[in-house]
Amino acid sequence: MGLVDDRVKTETPPAWLTGLVEAVGETRVSTAEETRREFGTDRWHAAALPDAVVQATCRDEVAATLRYANEHGIPVTTRGAGVGYVGGCVPVKGGILLSVRKMNHLLELNPADGVAVVEPGLILDDLQEAARRVGWYYPPDPASLKECSVGGTLATNAGGPRCVKYGVTRHYVLGLEIVLPDGQILETGGRCHKNKTGLDLIGMFVGSEGLLGVITKATLRLIPHPEARAMLTATFPDFETAAEAVQAILNQGWQPSGLEITDGFTLQAARDYLGPEMLPDGDAHLIVELDGRRETVLQDLARLRELVDSLGAVFVEEARDPESCEAIWKLRREFSYSLRATGLIKLNEDIVVPRSKLVDLVRFARQLEQDTGIPVACFGHAGDGNIHTNLMVKDYETDPDEKAKADAALDLLFKWVIANDGQITGEHGVGLAKKRWFADAVSPVSVEVHRRLKEALDPKRILNPGKFLG
Amino acid sequence: MGLVDDRVKTETPPAWLTGLVEAVGETRVSTAEETRREFGTDRWHAAALPDAVVQATCRDEVAATLRYANEHGIPVTTRGAGVGYVGGCVPVKGGILLSVRKMNHLLELNPADGVAVVEPGLILDDLQEAARRVGWYYPPDPASLKECSVGGTLATNAGGPRCVKYGVTRHYVLGLEIVLPDGQILETGGRCHKNKTGLDLIGMFVGSEGLLGVITKATLRLIPHPEARAMLTATFPDFETAAEAVQAILNQGWQPSGLEITDGFTLQAARDYLGPEMLPDGDAHLIVELDGRRETVLQDLARLRELVDSLGAVFVEEARDPESCEAIWKLRREFSYSLRATGLIKLNEDIVVPRSKLVDLVRFARQLEQDTGIPVACFGHAGDGNIHTNLMVKDYETDPDEKAKADAALDLLFKWVIANDGQITGEHGVGLAKKRWFADAVSPVSVEVHRRLKEALDPKRILNPGKFLG
Repeated sequence: MGLVDDRVKTETPPAWLTGLVEAVGETRVSTAEETRREFGTDRWHAAALPDAVVQATCRDEVAATLRYANEHGIPVTTRGAGVGYVGGCVPVKGGILLSVRKMNHLLELNPADGVAVVEPGLILDDLQEAARRVGWYYPPDPASLKECSVGGTLATNAGGPRCVKYGVTRHYVLGLEIVLPDGQILETGGRCHKNKTGLDLIGMFVGSEGLLGVITKATLRLIPHPEARAMLTATFPDFETAAEAVQAILNQGWQPSGLEITDGFTLQAARDYLGPEMLPDGDAHLIVELDGRRETVLQDLARLRELVDSLGAVFVEEARDPESCEAIWKLRREFSYSLRATGLIKLNEDIVVPRSKLVDLVRFARQLEQDTGIPVACFGHAGDGNIHTNLMVKDYETDPDEKAKADAALDLLFKWVIANDGQITGEHGVGLAKKRWFADAVSPVSVEVHRRLKEALDPKRILNPGKFLG
Repeated sequence: MGLVDDRVKTETPPAWLTGLVEAVGETRVSTAEETRREFGTDRWHAAALPDAVVQATCRDEVAATLRYANEHGIPVTTRGAGVGYVGGCVPVKGGILLSVRKMNHLLELNPADGVAVVEPGLILDDLQEAARRVGWYYPPDPASLKECSVGGTLATNAGGPRCVKYGVTRHYVLGLEIVLPDGQILETGGRCHKNKTGLDLIGMFVGSEGLLGVITKATLRLIPHPEARAMLTATFPDFETAAEAVQAILNQGWQPSGLEITDGFTLQAARDYLGPEMLPDGDAHLIVELDGRRETVLQDLARLRELVDSLGAVFVEEARDPESCEAIWKLRREFSYSLRATGLIKLNEDIVVPRSKLVDLVRFARQLEQDTGIPVACFGHAGDGNIHTNLMVKDYETDPDEKAKADAALDLLFKWVIANDGQITGEHGVGLAKKRWFADAVSPVSVEVHRRLKEALDPKRILNPGKFLG
């Protein structure tokens, strides 16, 4: 873990600990170094030790924790499953690490209303599977879905490959129960699929990265599960031709449920890792998924194939049943493992560009690679311009020179993104990882509005301090 | 117009008028009674005269107006096309009526990025048509689409029949330029299809009914236009059977692009108005629209028809080409005219219930009708439980007794809605019409959070005073 933390050396428990134990119950509070260490990190390169870990089991324990922390000005960092990519739940200011991982119940699954009611610690895949078993569908599908908590996806407004058709997490949140910093309970929204009663408080909290309140219950919108899926995978001679294919597919009125692009660097790593026979020739790779009715989705696929064949693909393969589709998604996931197998550390930046700039981005990545000597692998959600741009770095965590070089390259990347109407994060959040570029990415007036909203909802600034709002 | 307004009698221009004219230019400001009257109302039963009307033609004029108003504490009510249903843009506290109707340019239409950039005064239908002509689609489709401005749909987070598949206005807003009450310009979001940079300021302003800022430019997400549409229309012996059909269709994995239900009262009015041959027997009516690929959507329709035939429909008709589909939507629109043709005044309440309570709602409506003598017509967006519940009232605007009786019936309706996990407004907004029930519909903590957000963004409370936030 990269960041130095000296709090581990402080063995004196904080003065407020006794009061916290009284407020929330001693079985919920731990100050054991092992526990504090376990809850002090996520998947990014940072770690910090909280002074105490509270593992809440219900809303009232969350409320008791916040009420006490607010009275005494103690920092509180909320954590779900701890698998975020930006250090968002790393307690950099110490204080209380509040885990909602044990609040993991699926409280209700109700197809008649098209809703699921969940606690924040529920693993996303458990929700999706439960819905699927009754023929219903919860679309948000970040790659971490088997590990991440629903609460984490709410905190980051998580996306995934199927956002291109189905939208992001925020579009599926109907109601929230939130504990405010002072311990008050805010219930907003409900189980209706439309609601224009007042301001959009749900939008205010979804994606707020633990800065405004703690979500203790969510009512999520389910939609009918598409009856069938079918896929195409295609390789292209170069990235430009694949990016043109993306535009052509959309321009002809297709609404794919997945539209993923992969660059040559990633493909080469995959060939090295999986064997060249797994990936046909070509310097770019496209995945197109359709969903619809069982009787007709294959006919649609055949038409789509005609189109893709006409767009300069080197090799096209169809996946016409669930097993073949899963094999393609598995191959897609292997791209990540292939990059890891290079032995380099992957700095995964979930940047977004306007869709017309996919080619510009990859050209910039090639130039960055030349200028810095750091390989750059691009792949991701072509349909919405959300391309994971991975800087492949040696010894990032151990060699300060390599780290400085990589950070300078990230600076160049984010500057380019901002100058090209892009966004520095599409689905991971700002957290610590992108804090440095936040103010450049938004306007000064936007920073001021952010500050005013934070002040309005968390005047003592106890929630997740040290992140993008100070 | 129902509400008494005595400002019309005040002929002395306000002291601040000279300064306003200096700030924004005399060609933009009018105090003529005719203009003030024209801009003092919408489609609801309220009117109030502003002291002055500013017709802005650009962002800087909006900013100059707000800066001046903020300095002098003058109320500002913003208005788009003025076709709202809840009195949201009625300037009940006088002051300045700020019209953005002349800011009506489609600034950019860009399929490669999947965006349209618009000024707020643009008529929604003009945007939709422009997108359609290049094969792209902007889904939000309130019934007023030929008259309403995009700005109005942003202020109310407007919906429409196709929300059941495509979601509401908020899901299509990528970027906003907003003038804050003090005249500062906030630019937030951009043209990317995903964005997790900071808090969701876009969600904060979309649906905020003119209470937090004035939108002067919006970047909207376009999606590929579905190649083809096809529809079923069916009548059922009773509402219960039709509501069961709604559930069965969704449970079998259909994702219709429209799913509309109509009750017996409305059907009877339509038969009286249009002639009985226009609507086959049955006490409930269902419309199901599919969209997809031209080659397969009719096959899908045939399968859907098999299902609907098996669900107890009295009569089913298919619309297999654009003209037949349009004829069905036209018939659907005639339902509104049929109700008007009863000679009664229609109090159109856009309530929402959990989808499982469609039948309960209509039973309640029948009971309300019996108890109050006021006919109640229910029809609307069955798929998301957003049923327009129309109280058909005699002389609402002229007879205080009739008005009191109707208002008491509305009280009963909204109480029932709130007690049944419903929402008092799904797409029209709170405005004046539902202000009375706002605090009952949300919790006291929610009201407090609303107040804090208003205070944070509009500390002098100049924007749209007299609405649901004081």
